[in-house]
Amino acid sequence: MADKPKRQFNVVFEPAGIAVQVNTGDSILKTALKAGVHLTTTCGGSGTCGSCRVRLQKGDVDSVSSDAISQDEINQGIRLACQSYVSQDVTIEVLTNTSPDLEAPVAQTSLSMLNSSPELNPVATKHLLCLPVPTAGDNRADLKRLRYALKNHGYDEVIIDYQAVKNIPAILREKAWEATATLIHSTPVPLLSRLESGDTTTTNFGVAFDLGTTAIRARLIDLNTGSILAEQTAYNRQRDYGEDIISRISFCRKRGGIDILQKLTVDTLNALVHDMAALSGIDTDNISCMVVAGNTVMIQLLLAIDPEPLRLSPYVPAIDSVSPLKTVDLGINLGRHCYLHIIPAVASYVGGDIVAGVAACGMHESDKINLYIDIGTNGEIVVGNRDWMVTAACSAGPTFEGGGIKHGMLAIPGAIEDFSLEAPDATPRISVIGSASPAGICGSGLINTVSELFSTGILGRNGKFNPEASCARVRKGEDGLEYVLAEGNSSSSGRDIVLTEIDIDNFIRSKAAIYAGCQTLMESVGIDMSKLDNIIIAGTFGNHIDTENAIKTGLLPDVPREKFRFIGNGSLMGAHASIISRQQYAATSRLADIITGIELSENGAFMDNYVASLFLPHTDLEKFPSVGN
Amino acid sequence: MADKPKRQFNVVFEPAGIAVQVNTGDSILKTALKAGVHLTTTCGGSGTCGSCRVRLQKGDVDSVSSDAISQDEINQGIRLACQSYVSQDVTIEVLTNTSPDLEAPVAQTSLSMLNSSPELNPVATKHLLCLPVPTAGDNRADLKRLRYALKNHGYDEVIIDYQAVKNIPAILREKAWEATATLIHSTPVPLLSRLESGDTTTTNFGVAFDLGTTAIRARLIDLNTGSILAEQTAYNRQRDYGEDIISRISFCRKRGGIDILQKLTVDTLNALVHDMAALSGIDTDNISCMVVAGNTVMIQLLLAIDPEPLRLSPYVPAIDSVSPLKTVDLGINLGRHCYLHIIPAVASYVGGDIVAGVAACGMHESDKINLYIDIGTNGEIVVGNRDWMVTAACSAGPTFEGGGIKHGMLAIPGAIEDFSLEAPDATPRISVIGSASPAGICGSGLINTVSELFSTGILGRNGKFNPEASCARVRKGEDGLEYVLAEGNSSSSGRDIVLTEIDIDNFIRSKAAIYAGCQTLMESVGIDMSKLDNIIIAGTFGNHIDTENAIKTGLLPDVPREKFRFIGNGSLMGAHASIISRQQYAATSRLADIITGIELSENGAFMDNYVASLFLPHTDLEKFPSVGN
Repeated sequence: MADKPKRQFNVVFEPAGIAVQVNTGDSILKTALKAGVHLTTTCGGSGTCGSCRVRLQKGDVDSVSSDAISQDEINQGIRLACQSYVSQDVTIEVLTNTSPDLEAPVAQTSLSMLNSSPELNPVATKHLLCLPVPTAGDNRADLKRLRYALKNHGYDEVIIDYQAVKNIPAILREKAWEATATLIHSTPVPLLSRLESGDTTTTNFGVAFDLGTTAIRARLIDLNTGSILAEQTAYNRQRDYGEDIISRISFCRKRGGIDILQKLTVDTLNALVHDMAALSGIDTDNISCMVVAGNTVMIQLLLAIDPEPLRLSPYVPAIDSVSPLKTVDLGINLGRHCYLHIIPAVASYVGGDIVAGVAACGMHESDKINLYIDIGTNGEIVVGNRDWMVTAACSAGPTFEGGGIKHGMLAIPGAIEDFSLEAPDATPRISVIGSASPAGICGSGLINTVSELFSTGILGRNGKFNPEASCARVRKGEDGLEYVLAEGNSSSSGRDIVLTEIDIDNFIRSKAAIYAGCQTLMESVGIDMSKLDNIIIAGTFGNHIDTENAIKTGLLPDVPREKFRFIGNGSLMGAHASIISRQQYAATSRLADIITGIELSENGAFMDNYVASLFLPHTDLEKFPSVGN
Repeated sequence: MADKPKRQFNVVFEPAGIAVQVNTGDSILKTALKAGVHLTTTCGGSGTCGSCRVRLQKGDVDSVSSDAISQDEINQGIRLACQSYVSQDVTIEVLTNTSPDLEAPVAQTSLSMLNSSPELNPVATKHLLCLPVPTAGDNRADLKRLRYALKNHGYDEVIIDYQAVKNIPAILREKAWEATATLIHSTPVPLLSRLESGDTTTTNFGVAFDLGTTAIRARLIDLNTGSILAEQTAYNRQRDYGEDIISRISFCRKRGGIDILQKLTVDTLNALVHDMAALSGIDTDNISCMVVAGNTVMIQLLLAIDPEPLRLSPYVPAIDSVSPLKTVDLGINLGRHCYLHIIPAVASYVGGDIVAGVAACGMHESDKINLYIDIGTNGEIVVGNRDWMVTAACSAGPTFEGGGIKHGMLAIPGAIEDFSLEAPDATPRISVIGSASPAGICGSGLINTVSELFSTGILGRNGKFNPEASCARVRKGEDGLEYVLAEGNSSSSGRDIVLTEIDIDNFIRSKAAIYAGCQTLMESVGIDMSKLDNIIIAGTFGNHIDTENAIKTGLLPDVPREKFRFIGNGSLMGAHASIISRQQYAATSRLADIITGIELSENGAFMDNYVASLFLPHTDLEKFPSVGN
């Protein structure tokens, strides 16, 4: 091939203006990774999810055709980064918000700790050791020699894992007594988990996971720099055995059920790790550790621990935290040296995902009183500061994920995410994720639509269509009155997409549960909403909420807008923060012991607050002074 | 069977006078275990080794016939305890010294620590935890509840092994929130290795091993009392691949060789554990931990670590110590909760077996200067006190195990173990192990014979037969001059059993290596033999040495006899002491770092001392004032 050298081209990523030289045939996705430009992909670069869309600004690429992109888009210069290959100099525009699953990177988040990222002090470190060659006068054991070298690195006491040193004679002798030791720092005494020949210190990776009931989100992190090498989301394969947590727990009562679900989660983790490693060109063998944050049931299923008691009063979790364990012991396809860490849970209904997010925000270090809300199938709430913290979960139901809504859907391409009635003649305008034909409405679309219909008087405070509004789009459907969001001639299914009064009622119940949960939790510690310094909204969904509309509908409290902080996936952020900082991991683990759980379902005050919240925005308008009537 | 109740009989063991009631059909061996009477068995009670001989004093037993016992013996009332069953009241005499492998129990040993046994504080403990039943007001996680209970037992921080708590929901609920936790104390922070339903605190066992090249000796110990439940010895199954250490190391260069040898050792350990458990009626699942002391090569082979560097200058061991590891990781057939501990080595030629013995004697705590000698294939020597300790190994060769001796053999039944020329007419008298027909001569027999022949002038100081002695038993054989120990008409083979001048020369070389080793080691620290406070002789062989005869031949130094201490198998004793006392385990582990190894093979002074020792007892008679010429 000497007569046909590889040609190199310049690729520029805008708007950041990052330039990189690559070889002919490299994909744009791979090029972006090389340039440190973060593109989301949920399908692992197979061209099916469409979440890595970019736009050509100058030059062209060789693209493979894909169903995930329309001819219209292609005509506009849109391409899938994973299906496009460099064949000339090219300038690429990175599109934001094209993917429904785009996570907020740590750097975007606020509050004390994350104003400045935690100091890089990862849970697993690599150390190059240059050992003296043995002589007749110094024939100490190989391992003793190693321990002395570790002492010189400041590690006086180190637990030696047998598996790590089983081949020590060959390892030390292969590269002239130069070796690299991997230490795990999350144990009371550092643990030597791996020993390699020569200098391998540049390859030390970790994976952070948010283990959700529906989706598992993963980040591959370079532990030497703290930077994200790849990020992936996949559906939790357990979904084959039930969408919700209760059906998963029920399945575990079947013989072998726990092991089936455990394996499906592990399969998902394995696929995510494999894909991220392939995308970023690293060897999975160089993954030294994992941190997993997740809800209590998902964590117990990952560990194959019977979740049955979580379903029955008094809802007792099996574990809060366990000591770091070997990933191979769970069937994860990684080296024997890779250790897995679990972020501990507070209670059955407040898992390590919440603890991780709260810790990532630095609430436990702050003098200020912060309210943390994670909105998903459940709304989990934490309020407090460095001295105290209380938490509760309120059953918001699956409304914000499309559940219980006639044309509800997840925030994926085709979902209506915004709605407005435009002056002068109140023409309805919808905004659809992925610029696709509308297929349904997602959680943020629901909030925005209800807010707009309420603001314009089409919807009354009780959540019913106002008979005096005489709106052409309101009609009588098979489930009662409904609003036509999109007509069949423009929808992907050919059917009208509607929002019914029943949908709106379900939405109001959900938003009331969250607001009443916040109110009750704060009343339980005698703090008024106005005393809050910050309201932190976590969750992928939360990141897409329009604050004004959320307040208008009474989902969020009516406080000065600058108090709101949107952090995206707090769970993943917390797992990430813990893996790159052992202090953060320790603080997060302690936090679960500090937070006090409060049970709302048996709380009379909660029921009163909930009923009072079943209006738009609330029965008590004094609580929402900025919302006009 | 209600009409045929089991009948009970009284069995009395003499000379201790211990009485016990047992059922018809129980074996005498099982009855002895029940009575706490220690009988040695090396074949696991299968009737083949003959080491559990007892004598009937009153009454009779039902015995199964066995090749391991002669009709003569049976006529004398001798029986094999394992093949004899109770059918009436019976009084049994326990015979001492019938077994060549009888270990010295810890209680027989002397010196500081073992004058009083170490305080019972075992490496693994069991704790009964009675947990509060969860309520709506107290729905802490199962594991958190458990941790609080452990805190109440004084354990503030405990490492939780995932495998131990995987079934925690069922374990805690099965016996109404009463559970038993097993803690391992040899880690920097205690480790929860097992959790069981209800109260299982009475069943907590450990196994101590002396892992030798030829034989593996094991003790099953009740960790709640420190008492020995069973003791067994088996040949190391690695012997199929070579009798000596060098041939084992060589075999490891073959593909898969290490794994083959590793598995053979593990097979031996498994068989020993199985047999001891069966004999004492315990469930192997209740074995919580193991401690293994052994020579450096055997330990590396147990751990499947390449021993090749141990064979080549500068003779570097792979490991000194490793952190406790799970026995299942080595293929040992015990529960996942069982942890194995290795007593660390000082050097390739001074292993954990020596360190264990030295620690068991309390040399590291003593102001006195002690000399520790373990005589086997190698002679390992340690001298020092609480402030300093030096060690060396000297190649004594296999003489004392019968190697290099024409009719040499191990100290098993049929071996001549004593010899004397009785007045008035110097009639030779031999004493044979097991009262059997003589088959050869063992190490102690060799010392006693050479000493007697030298004392009576038949042998000269140079180890040659004295031509002026005109002894009828000295004759010219095919290998030169030889002494007839037993004639063919009385020997088991029908051939004469002889001791040749070549045999005597080999013996002298061996005893010279040991004496010169001791002398050189002591000179290296500037201490004279007369300054020694104690001389501790370890090793099964050592236990059978006649001190006077050993001094007469120059094997042992000529110091006041009360300074000699015979401790038997120091390695097994040390493993035993470590398993019942975590302080002893810690002290033993530290000891390997404190002892300084000295290489004799490259030491000029050693060669000089060795050559000077090649006489009976020595060229310098001033060193042996008590030995008359």
